[in-house]
Amino acid sequence: MPDSYNAFYAQSGGVTAVINATACGLIETARRHMDRIAKLYAGRNGIIGALTEDLIDTSLEPPEAIAALRHTPGGAFGSCRFKLKGLNESKAEYERLIEVFKAHNIGYFFYNGGGDSQDTSYKVSQIGEKLGYPITCIGIPKTVDNDLPLTDNCPGFGSVAKYVAVSIREASLDVASMAETSTKVFVMEVMGRHAGWIAAAGGLAAQNEGDPPQLILFPEIPFKRETFLKKVKESVTKYGYCCIVVSEGVRDQDGQLLAEAGTRDAFGHAQLGGVAPLIADIIKTELGYKYHWAVADYLQRSARHIASKTDVDQAYALGEAAVELAIQGKNAIMLTIVRKSDDPYEWQIGTAKLKDVTNAEKKMPTMFIREDGFGITEACRRYLKPLIDGEDYPPYVDGMPHYVQLKNIAVPKKTGRAFALK
Amino acid sequence: MPDSYNAFYAQSGGVTAVINATACGLIETARRHMDRIAKLYAGRNGIIGALTEDLIDTSLEPPEAIAALRHTPGGAFGSCRFKLKGLNESKAEYERLIEVFKAHNIGYFFYNGGGDSQDTSYKVSQIGEKLGYPITCIGIPKTVDNDLPLTDNCPGFGSVAKYVAVSIREASLDVASMAETSTKVFVMEVMGRHAGWIAAAGGLAAQNEGDPPQLILFPEIPFKRETFLKKVKESVTKYGYCCIVVSEGVRDQDGQLLAEAGTRDAFGHAQLGGVAPLIADIIKTELGYKYHWAVADYLQRSARHIASKTDVDQAYALGEAAVELAIQGKNAIMLTIVRKSDDPYEWQIGTAKLKDVTNAEKKMPTMFIREDGFGITEACRRYLKPLIDGEDYPPYVDGMPHYVQLKNIAVPKKTGRAFALK
Repeated sequence: MPDSYNAFYAQSGGVTAVINATACGLIETARRHMDRIAKLYAGRNGIIGALTEDLIDTSLEPPEAIAALRHTPGGAFGSCRFKLKGLNESKAEYERLIEVFKAHNIGYFFYNGGGDSQDTSYKVSQIGEKLGYPITCIGIPKTVDNDLPLTDNCPGFGSVAKYVAVSIREASLDVASMAETSTKVFVMEVMGRHAGWIAAAGGLAAQNEGDPPQLILFPEIPFKRETFLKKVKESVTKYGYCCIVVSEGVRDQDGQLLAEAGTRDAFGHAQLGGVAPLIADIIKTELGYKYHWAVADYLQRSARHIASKTDVDQAYALGEAAVELAIQGKNAIMLTIVRKSDDPYEWQIGTAKLKDVTNAEKKMPTMFIREDGFGITEACRRYLKPLIDGEDYPPYVDGMPHYVQLKNIAVPKKTGRAFALK
Repeated sequence: MPDSYNAFYAQSGGVTAVINATACGLIETARRHMDRIAKLYAGRNGIIGALTEDLIDTSLEPPEAIAALRHTPGGAFGSCRFKLKGLNESKAEYERLIEVFKAHNIGYFFYNGGGDSQDTSYKVSQIGEKLGYPITCIGIPKTVDNDLPLTDNCPGFGSVAKYVAVSIREASLDVASMAETSTKVFVMEVMGRHAGWIAAAGGLAAQNEGDPPQLILFPEIPFKRETFLKKVKESVTKYGYCCIVVSEGVRDQDGQLLAEAGTRDAFGHAQLGGVAPLIADIIKTELGYKYHWAVADYLQRSARHIASKTDVDQAYALGEAAVELAIQGKNAIMLTIVRKSDDPYEWQIGTAKLKDVTNAEKKMPTMFIREDGFGITEACRRYLKPLIDGEDYPPYVDGMPHYVQLKNIAVPKKTGRAFALK
């Protein structure tokens, strides 16, 4: 075998404002080690690109395009939701990966994703031993939900957190201005189906007792209608208004998602809206307050214009470290962020064994949720604060951020065989 | 009467990301003319503050707090939705205004709002002649909807426009990354109940044929379900996905708001959601595409973090000009923005007579809407482009924008009489 291999990199699962910053760090670092990594190929639409032999030759992109990935949101090579099962169940897929990797002399596998993706990385790391194709396999964390175990935080989260904290602070100033004669309740729905990290970030907007958002609804705390309504009324009575951040994952006492437990329309369709309009309607019906609601949806996870500098720096550094560690021979690991201190914030990159990365979501610890269940604690604030710190604005042209569109030129196919995705 | 009077300033109607920049320009300029304007009082919660004699003494705020208004969204003194009727119908209110103005030696009336507010300004300007209390009356435009007549554009709009254009560009990069295996249609709902200016701003994100947003739904164009679905299908077929900006004000062929014409739930309640979930559901039902939707609501009009520099500069300049013109004796006018040239963009402040400011909304001209009804023309782009130009970031502390909270100390009451609001 030659001393130098090609590498495969793929983006997996929901994209973020900074996943391309990881790609940037990875590609720029690989280009400094061409003696070891001849070419870096990216999968078009994630792992699907490997299975269909649809590889993108990143060496054909000029340095300034690669540099611009650092400030471009979305997934520059395309991502996918596609989960490989076990080596036995999905044997055809793993054999196909080996076929493509062999044909393109791929010796490194970099997989940039969340829990499911790290599970896939682990399985790919086993193909050396179990299917006879040794490959250096490194998982790079990414998820806006911040719910990966073993790492202090996940790239992508800090920027969503900043977006949510800034947005609710701004909207609350609006609501406070108008509450005397107009909207008294504002409900902002945020992502996080299983863990309340993103909702918690809204709490950073509140600095003093009574500051908005006055209430946060976490997936970790079952929704109690009466207690909640009492709190809303208290806030409106005391402050003149009530701003609420609600996680899309908030559930009722039976564990059912509130958004799904809602009303159905005349045709029996489940209600179209998310949980924010539902919460707003409960308040209107029971307390009569005029409301507004917002659902930020993808706007929150793609908001590169208000990205956290900490987040961008960490995302880039992980891409850099992935290459450095891979050529040092580290294998079957996921990179992690290790927190050394809260204030001043100090962090470094660590590693975990891929086999130890379970699919379990890391929920908010109890000590991060205020005793009444509707806010965050000082401990949570200490944890979150450095993650949103610093601004890292993209360049602007004519009033619009200048985001790069890569050429994404395909590597000529070599296997001479198509592969049907199941 | 003395040579020097006090002035009254009030914010009216929905607030914006830059209405406080106008307040900043006005207060800073008034402070340079204390020989003419002794003190500037702000109405707490807009005109209500005048009626209830709840005046805020802005002279008690330190210069740095007033300077920070330039970068603080919301309405620093509170705003309201409260419409004064004609001088005959609302005689008690106008007499009360005179009572309060007399008691506090107020000789200048600055009213910062949209169409209804300019109508109020006009009526107040008449109280000199009709009710024997001469007052210098200047209307300052403000509305995110950009629908005021006589002015080329309205402060507040440029920043919403920038937010919408940036947000849909970012979210579209996300959607494009994932479309192969996940979301194929993204719908973003924006404000603008009567005019499509804000929706049109989404079109600035598209630079080349086929760029997202592929479709825009305007209130000016009746919604045709079949034509729309055909366009969505075309976009998904050709580009792999479809991003849509929809105005909250889009109407069906009968002129009914789509959001209100929607389905009702099992209890007969009108659907809770806005028009975005409705559009998304139509697409899912008819074409089967996986969708996501966002409703930015107040986030869009309070997003000072991504304000347009043009907008901030104009908002400030209008506040400045209001004072300068008032002490020059100009009366019963609304300030306007006059466009001198598109590129390079040149503008200046002009004036219109308050009596000429009708309540009619300025809709999008036909020449600004693409022939197929689903996008903007080059003429529209030329109009919009300078309005979103430039960035004007607020200062940040600990990762959060530093927005000012004024002390808002009340002026001691002098009329010795309460006034009940109807």
